[in-house]
Amino acid sequence: MKRTKIVDVLRSTDFGNNVNVKGWVRTHRSSKAVDFIALNDGSTIKNVQIVVDPSKFDAETLKNITTGSCLNVVGELVESQGKGQTVEIQCKTLEIYGPCGSDYPMQKKGQTFEYMRQHAHMRLRTNTFGAVFRIRHNMAIAIHRYFHEHGFFYFHTPIITASDAEGAGEMFQVTTKNLYDLKKDENGKIIYDDDFFGKMTSLTVSGQLEGELGATALGQIYTFGPTFRAENSNTPRHLAEFWMIEPEVAFIDLNDLMDLEEDFIKYCVKWALDNCKDDLEFLNNMIDKGLIERLQGILKDDFVRLPYTEGINILEEAVRQGHKFEFPVSWGTDLASEHERYLVEEHFKKPVIMTDYPKDIKAFYMKMNEDGKTVQGTDVLFPQIGEIIGGSVREEDYDKLLGEIKRRDIPMKDMWWYLETRKYGTCPHGGFGLGFERLILFVTGMQNIRDVIPFPRTPKSADF
Amino acid sequence: MKRTKIVDVLRSTDFGNNVNVKGWVRTHRSSKAVDFIALNDGSTIKNVQIVVDPSKFDAETLKNITTGSCLNVVGELVESQGKGQTVEIQCKTLEIYGPCGSDYPMQKKGQTFEYMRQHAHMRLRTNTFGAVFRIRHNMAIAIHRYFHEHGFFYFHTPIITASDAEGAGEMFQVTTKNLYDLKKDENGKIIYDDDFFGKMTSLTVSGQLEGELGATALGQIYTFGPTFRAENSNTPRHLAEFWMIEPEVAFIDLNDLMDLEEDFIKYCVKWALDNCKDDLEFLNNMIDKGLIERLQGILKDDFVRLPYTEGINILEEAVRQGHKFEFPVSWGTDLASEHERYLVEEHFKKPVIMTDYPKDIKAFYMKMNEDGKTVQGTDVLFPQIGEIIGGSVREEDYDKLLGEIKRRDIPMKDMWWYLETRKYGTCPHGGFGLGFERLILFVTGMQNIRDVIPFPRTPKSADF
Repeated sequence: MKRTKIVDVLRSTDFGNNVNVKGWVRTHRSSKAVDFIALNDGSTIKNVQIVVDPSKFDAETLKNITTGSCLNVVGELVESQGKGQTVEIQCKTLEIYGPCGSDYPMQKKGQTFEYMRQHAHMRLRTNTFGAVFRIRHNMAIAIHRYFHEHGFFYFHTPIITASDAEGAGEMFQVTTKNLYDLKKDENGKIIYDDDFFGKMTSLTVSGQLEGELGATALGQIYTFGPTFRAENSNTPRHLAEFWMIEPEVAFIDLNDLMDLEEDFIKYCVKWALDNCKDDLEFLNNMIDKGLIERLQGILKDDFVRLPYTEGINILEEAVRQGHKFEFPVSWGTDLASEHERYLVEEHFKKPVIMTDYPKDIKAFYMKMNEDGKTVQGTDVLFPQIGEIIGGSVREEDYDKLLGEIKRRDIPMKDMWWYLETRKYGTCPHGGFGLGFERLILFVTGMQNIRDVIPFPRTPKSADF
Repeated sequence: MKRTKIVDVLRSTDFGNNVNVKGWVRTHRSSKAVDFIALNDGSTIKNVQIVVDPSKFDAETLKNITTGSCLNVVGELVESQGKGQTVEIQCKTLEIYGPCGSDYPMQKKGQTFEYMRQHAHMRLRTNTFGAVFRIRHNMAIAIHRYFHEHGFFYFHTPIITASDAEGAGEMFQVTTKNLYDLKKDENGKIIYDDDFFGKMTSLTVSGQLEGELGATALGQIYTFGPTFRAENSNTPRHLAEFWMIEPEVAFIDLNDLMDLEEDFIKYCVKWALDNCKDDLEFLNNMIDKGLIERLQGILKDDFVRLPYTEGINILEEAVRQGHKFEFPVSWGTDLASEHERYLVEEHFKKPVIMTDYPKDIKAFYMKMNEDGKTVQGTDVLFPQIGEIIGGSVREEDYDKLLGEIKRRDIPMKDMWWYLETRKYGTCPHGGFGLGFERLILFVTGMQNIRDVIPFPRTPKSADF
């Protein structure tokens, strides 16, 4: 008999016929007259109820049907008498694929998230993490669909890089050198001739610069791949290994870029609301009562478009009115998360796209405005999490870009190929970056970034 | 005026109206009466022809419209008089975004692929590599669609790992240690307490083991991410950094797994034929005259399902009949590419799924057959490239798996979490791995794997 997934069984009305389900036991309640087994196969957060007449089965078998054990069940699909479920299965045959002892780490309910992290190999079998990772899947699908439908090409930028030009953060070194026998030159400097790539290499911190090579050839591309930061930040917002999405578009200006950012992120949020209803309802009930309302809120209004300078004026006015911020605010400083959240959650009460930042707080590649002071950066600020997208129009002028590279002492050995995009047939272009786990935090209501990636990599932790 | 992509312009019949196109000049032919500019914006392999009346434009401007320069053109869409194109644009206004000097590396046609690799940052702007990377995008989209439509969840397994259990190949070390001041213990052993993760870490060679954690919780998952091998293999088939797809499915048996492999790969090939027509026709003309026919051939027949032992019999018979192989063939040895290709291209003349391999030539996690000698491996062998998919049913029995781990001296420090999938609620399951670049080689007809990934990483080469 062909197995049916539980997500399909729960939608079925094929009452009176036999059905085969396979999955893991969430709960097993016994009484003299009847046993109820809640079975889950990961296809949905909902369990199917298996109703067992204990007189028809071996008592020893029934005793071994414990939380976490794996079953193969054939039975008749019937309309359910119980509340909150529409179908159940009257068990006819039952096979235990895998028993599960009382030392099963996911045995007890209500364990802390920290406990769950220590058992990340098993937490996937719980309701919360099942919901989170089904939503994570759906967000990835939404991203690929959005870009494919809009004529972008998925572009794989390299993970191992010999460049450290972007300066986005500290890097992990990648090597095949024998650390017990490091060759050095006469000045004591390590020689990399015999390393795998013949030079010092690291893990990428961003695919943007290579993405620009793609966009200035294929027109519009996006990356979606792992990115690395060797920062010793033990916070609920930082991972050493995380996934980034970085679209890059030729022939785009600041306004079109903001339109793209807003349209894209709304598409993702709408996808979650349309395709992850059961999982979102579970998380809304169990994790964050405001979740679904907050997601719907994103779709309701146009995002505010706010030049940095106006944002600073609003924040300075708030300070004058007595609002207390931890960090001072003045033109030229980078906004802290509290400032971003004040603008989004208290002042405008909707998402904000901030633009035209002072050049010195932004990266070298951003296009300079005519004022000579600000650059065409565009960051999207969201409730709860602050910056969710960071983007900009890129400086397409060869001489201006070269001037900025020199002013910042960026090594030219890493820059020649990037500069050639401006030397040969340069074009106006721009793009943005979205931290995938930031998006998942927002869409799931989870509080710690370690809980929205299957196996988090953080300082002193690389388990599984 | 809003820009229109060239792929859309070429499909338009909105004759008599103005259209705005932007892109890079592929060729510019001048005469007294008329200039023809072939413009490409990466959205399609086809160029749109811009027809310019030289009497209406500044001669200096027209002189600067060289191969590789970037233009912004407004003109009237008209039906084309020329062969092989249906529309062209009668130029009204023309702006040069970016000129392009005669030192442009993609100036000349007919450069070697090796030359192109040295200019990988610019080769993206050529017809061949535009076609290859649009197809690469489409294959990624096909893969995500297939799995999403079939209820698989995209699952991100870690890139940095402290485990070297899979033994699939040599690994790159990942470290933040100061190589000038390596702490060692009293026996001279390097101490990793102060490394970022507090232990020695490497780049993953496979996400399968973690993927099994996902499948035994979410039911069916797939990975699609970068994978690394620090092997000093300078061949047209090896990359140090490549992308892998690894689906893993709970409650699957050998036959269903073979069905999945065949259905999946046919879906991908069909997607290419349906969605990449222009690019495939170009590659069929320019690179490999048999390409489209070979792709169509994959869809025509059922794949042959062939136990390894029968395959050996066929090969031994071929040897007896006088067929010369470079490597000897006998039961128990791993097949070489020439053997696989003989079976596929000469004997059966269709793809082959080979099964039931001797246990000692396959990985520790494969499910043992009742004969005690063979395991439930399933490799898909294709014309031209040999093995395109390697898969197996996994050993779900805790004791058998533990026995195999011990027999092979695999360190238990890396295995405890993997074994727990069999300890708690074990289930029958299986999966396979597909090297993404192998698929792209097959679908594009390209001969060197360095030409189907934007920026190849190979021994002594990590440019861009």
